[in-house]
Amino acid sequence: MNGAESLVKSLIASGVDTCFTNPGTSEMHFVAALDHVPGMRSVLCLFEGVATGAADGYWRMARKPAITLLHLGPGLANGIANLHNAKKAHSGVVNIVGEHAETHRKLDAPLMADIEGLSRPVSHWVHSSLSAADVGADGASAVAAAQVEPGQIATLILPSDTAWTEGGSVHAAPAPADRPGVDAGELERAAAALDGPETLLLLGGLALTAENLEKAGRIAARTGCAILSEWSNARLERGAGRVVINRVPYPIDQALGVLKPYKRVVLVGARAPIGFFAYPGKPAVLTAEGAEIQALAGAGDDLSGALDGLVEATGAAGSAPRGIAERKHVARPSGKADAVTIAQALAATIPDNAIVVDESITTGRAFFPATAGAAPHTWLNNCGGSIGYSLPVAIGCAVACPDRKVLALVGDGSAMYTIQSLWTMAREGLDVTVLVLANRTYQILRGELTNVGVQNPGPRAIDMLSLDRPALDFVAMAQGMGVTAVRVEEAGALVDAIEAALASGGPNLIEVVV
Amino acid sequence: MNGAESLVKSLIASGVDTCFTNPGTSEMHFVAALDHVPGMRSVLCLFEGVATGAADGYWRMARKPAITLLHLGPGLANGIANLHNAKKAHSGVVNIVGEHAETHRKLDAPLMADIEGLSRPVSHWVHSSLSAADVGADGASAVAAAQVEPGQIATLILPSDTAWTEGGSVHAAPAPADRPGVDAGELERAAAALDGPETLLLLGGLALTAENLEKAGRIAARTGCAILSEWSNARLERGAGRVVINRVPYPIDQALGVLKPYKRVVLVGARAPIGFFAYPGKPAVLTAEGAEIQALAGAGDDLSGALDGLVEATGAAGSAPRGIAERKHVARPSGKADAVTIAQALAATIPDNAIVVDESITTGRAFFPATAGAAPHTWLNNCGGSIGYSLPVAIGCAVACPDRKVLALVGDGSAMYTIQSLWTMAREGLDVTVLVLANRTYQILRGELTNVGVQNPGPRAIDMLSLDRPALDFVAMAQGMGVTAVRVEEAGALVDAIEAALASGGPNLIEVVV
Repeated sequence: MNGAESLVKSLIASGVDTCFTNPGTSEMHFVAALDHVPGMRSVLCLFEGVATGAADGYWRMARKPAITLLHLGPGLANGIANLHNAKKAHSGVVNIVGEHAETHRKLDAPLMADIEGLSRPVSHWVHSSLSAADVGADGASAVAAAQVEPGQIATLILPSDTAWTEGGSVHAAPAPADRPGVDAGELERAAAALDGPETLLLLGGLALTAENLEKAGRIAARTGCAILSEWSNARLERGAGRVVINRVPYPIDQALGVLKPYKRVVLVGARAPIGFFAYPGKPAVLTAEGAEIQALAGAGDDLSGALDGLVEATGAAGSAPRGIAERKHVARPSGKADAVTIAQALAATIPDNAIVVDESITTGRAFFPATAGAAPHTWLNNCGGSIGYSLPVAIGCAVACPDRKVLALVGDGSAMYTIQSLWTMAREGLDVTVLVLANRTYQILRGELTNVGVQNPGPRAIDMLSLDRPALDFVAMAQGMGVTAVRVEEAGALVDAIEAALASGGPNLIEVVV
Repeated sequence: MNGAESLVKSLIASGVDTCFTNPGTSEMHFVAALDHVPGMRSVLCLFEGVATGAADGYWRMARKPAITLLHLGPGLANGIANLHNAKKAHSGVVNIVGEHAETHRKLDAPLMADIEGLSRPVSHWVHSSLSAADVGADGASAVAAAQVEPGQIATLILPSDTAWTEGGSVHAAPAPADRPGVDAGELERAAAALDGPETLLLLGGLALTAENLEKAGRIAARTGCAILSEWSNARLERGAGRVVINRVPYPIDQALGVLKPYKRVVLVGARAPIGFFAYPGKPAVLTAEGAEIQALAGAGDDLSGALDGLVEATGAAGSAPRGIAERKHVARPSGKADAVTIAQALAATIPDNAIVVDESITTGRAFFPATAGAAPHTWLNNCGGSIGYSLPVAIGCAVACPDRKVLALVGDGSAMYTIQSLWTMAREGLDVTVLVLANRTYQILRGELTNVGVQNPGPRAIDMLSLDRPALDFVAMAQGMGVTAVRVEEAGALVDAIEAALASGGPNLIEVVV
């Protein structure tokens, strides 16, 4: 058994069965091993940013790592932006990055690059295999590293000679360690702080499961405290029957306004709120001045246990959860597709148990509140701020959950970053409906120009933010990659298009001109 | 004057007048400064890999740096693969990478990343501006660093507060230093080695200008030595009236065969030939065992002077250059488009003074020899091996040389990496004709599977190398980005399509199904 085969077998023995890849010459033995060894689904992507984003989405839904197989330093580099997003979302990912054989590395061949240097900024764990005998154990260690709570990026560098040399052995990663529990004294202190509407219980990570939100709803009912989530959540369960949770807004002035009333903030899986960017003359910390902040439980802690403890300590076990969303049947909207009518169309059509991957940026700010009473669904945000996350993440979600429908909401500017995703959706026949919200501008930057103090931008500045010269035709691009597509400008037509797309069971793209 | 304005003015004062960008919030003051300060052409790209590749192409043709303006760590990350290629091509590029304000960096905001760490593997020079007062001088230093021969990657990190704070001043980069001359004793030694057909004069970099190739042709005529170039050349002048130079082949066995006769190798601007990859049981160094290798002049040395010196030392001044290509008028080909007939179509249509950006991979191996007698033109290769270089580089060439026609030859797999380039070509009305060679597979990897010793790959392996499920429709994709496009399968139709595209004066895409 060569090193490559031992690695594939070790990954499978460690519970990994999905690979998102764009391989090259240095990875050919790994590709050959995928052939000989059954048990690993390999999904080809036309660009590595698609592979890494797909692994992010896969973790969020499957709660176990997929691997990416990447071609040396440049292949890894193309995946870094979505690894950045995955890291900020606490997703566990195992990257296998091919490398030249040892004898070749000193020669500065064209593809030679500092792979470890490129890996470190986006990896919690980086290791280069030294010999074929080590590769299996290294693979198991990488999986173990990826599974360290709340999820980590593990990058294993695989020199081609360690892949092709005989002498491999198979190893399995140990089961992940339990999440640390919360200190009883801290729990008492937090429970005491939750004494009315001037206290905010701010939730993140796995505190946003349906079950945990129900606990938060009981605590809110009992104590009168407010509950919110962070702006960006890796995964949030919502819709009819679930406790409604609003997010701290993205626009800096709105965020400051929403957080102003709270004198005490208890964090469960969330971080203390800060601005996405710095703005001249505006604070970076968004909580009210002098607010007391207690970090009760971090993203990697036992958040379910922390909320159980808070329910008990506040005496909320008998309280009915506050703010459970009622199923709201929305009338079919009509008129021009805009932020409001698209939100209505979504509220009317989101199917039961859907996964919504949200990169709708400016157009989509109204979507979240408008869909609180839709059928129960899961909502995913971009946690790292690097655009181009949603189409790849939608692939990962659909691969992880073949029985669920995936809806990706994406701005036109963001969609172009990883547009190659559409081909993989077609190739794999994934049940993904993509809504491209085509406002033909980097609209968010128009607002940000003002926020950073630039008044009256001139034509050259505006031109740098405009996507209308020429207009992008997403229908043509989607068809070019084998995805059925349609363009709509009217809200009723949008409802029809979403319903037809969902009914098809395969990938579809709807370009919504707004 | 704020820091951003001082930077734009300093870059212009340093001779930089072109910016390839995809900006974000942290770069908004720089964008505003581009508005106020005339003199910088800003070219919007929909993905940063397009911007960095364009800067590579711009340097190759303009011999001066363009800047890229990139959005924090992830924006830089998306540009790394083409910076890798630019670095290996010795292209001078100045990256301006936005960063959070100082007060914001400690907060671990979503877009916070280790920008310096990401920069170093692809940069010769990295610096973070500390205050608005420093930014102008930092910009001038970055330009100076990019211009260090033979061309370097300089990355300047620009925290948003240094951009928006007042107190900037304008600085200009000094003129680049002269290239070091070659030692007289080394020249004599090289001239003595050039004593017949067992010696190879291997050329690279600026040794491949028409003028320098003519010198090499005289030396070859006088001494009987062979001349070759490296496989990958940043820029090579060729066609009718120029000295024909062949390249060391890419396939390892062919390369070993071509280099076997040479007992002595003199390097002028080239490196000693090595394999692109390591292969089990095959040598990495491609020259014959025991061959004497003399590195007469490196890529950054005075290559023109080195060749002048060799002409003199070998007494070749009076010799007519050996191997000048005659203009070869190729008959219009007919029949199925394949490697041979496409090569004929190119030979028949390459216009005078064209720039050919070659990423034609397997299909294109016959193109180079077949076009030696075409109209005089410039030929560019990928020096770093990271695919997706050609469409961005074509943008940079067309921006640098608006009076020349650019022909990009690209495999389908490579084209998909930076397909967003087409939109920028349309937006800027660039005179670029793109030939996508659609063999619907990563064909090169089929061969590499065998080269690395994988016999009889099975269906899962083959599937990872195939692009035919579904077939990509490049005509639809191009039209979706505003580029006129046509599909051809026949060689005569290809000639017509190339001629029509060249005559249009704007961007066109031709999908050649092979």
